Amino acid sequence: MIIDHLQPPYYAVIFSTLMTDNLEGYQEAAERMEALARLQPGYLGIESSRNEIGITVSYWENLDAISQWKNNVEHTEVRALGKAKWYRKYQLRICKVEREYGFES
Amino acid sequence: MIIDHLQPPYYAVIFSTLMTDNLEGYQEAAERMEALARLQPGYLGIESSRNEIGITVSYWENLDAISQWKNNVEHTEVRALGKAKWYRKYQLRICKVEREYGFES
Repeated sequence: MIIDHLQPPYYAVIFSTLMTDNLEGYQEAAERMEALARLQPGYLGIESSRNEIGITVSYWENLDAISQWKNNVEHTEVRALGKAKWYRKYQLRICKVEREYGFES
Repeated sequence: MIIDHLQPPYYAVIFSTLMTDNLEGYQEAAERMEALARLQPGYLGIESSRNEIGITVSYWENLDAISQWKNNVEHTEVRALGKAKWYRKYQLRICKVEREYGFES
């Protein structure tokens, strides 16, 4: 799903991933994390796509909301599991969204 | 491919898309645009993924580089074609990357 227009300024976390061959438990954990993120104060939405690489972009009201989500205990445990099992490589970028444009046919 | 660590601050353009059923000419145009973007001053890299939705993130040194790429004549023509044929819906977000973290196992 594409997240419709939000009102800048707000924040985006771009999470780009390469997976290992061991995806046992990954899908369940990803769904649980998405459900948990939705409950966080300041959460605005998430977009996700995967083929050779995965790109997940989550949107947040401000840096404090991102920091609170990072410190969520269950999220912290799952990140450790991700590094141990599922992720071969990732890059995470914290960005301030300054402008946006939409199109719908 | 995941773009390795870059030095913030720099800019990201998050382009999230839903396609129509008519993808004739799309793959060629996408490859041509990526090749052309690489030649632009201030281009830093691109990451792309697609399943239900597509997410393409391109990275740039500054807003001026993004503006120059937007005004590239061939890119402008292809954007018009994209709106007419390939894109059912898209959202484009221009973001300043403030921080980043990487992991490699």
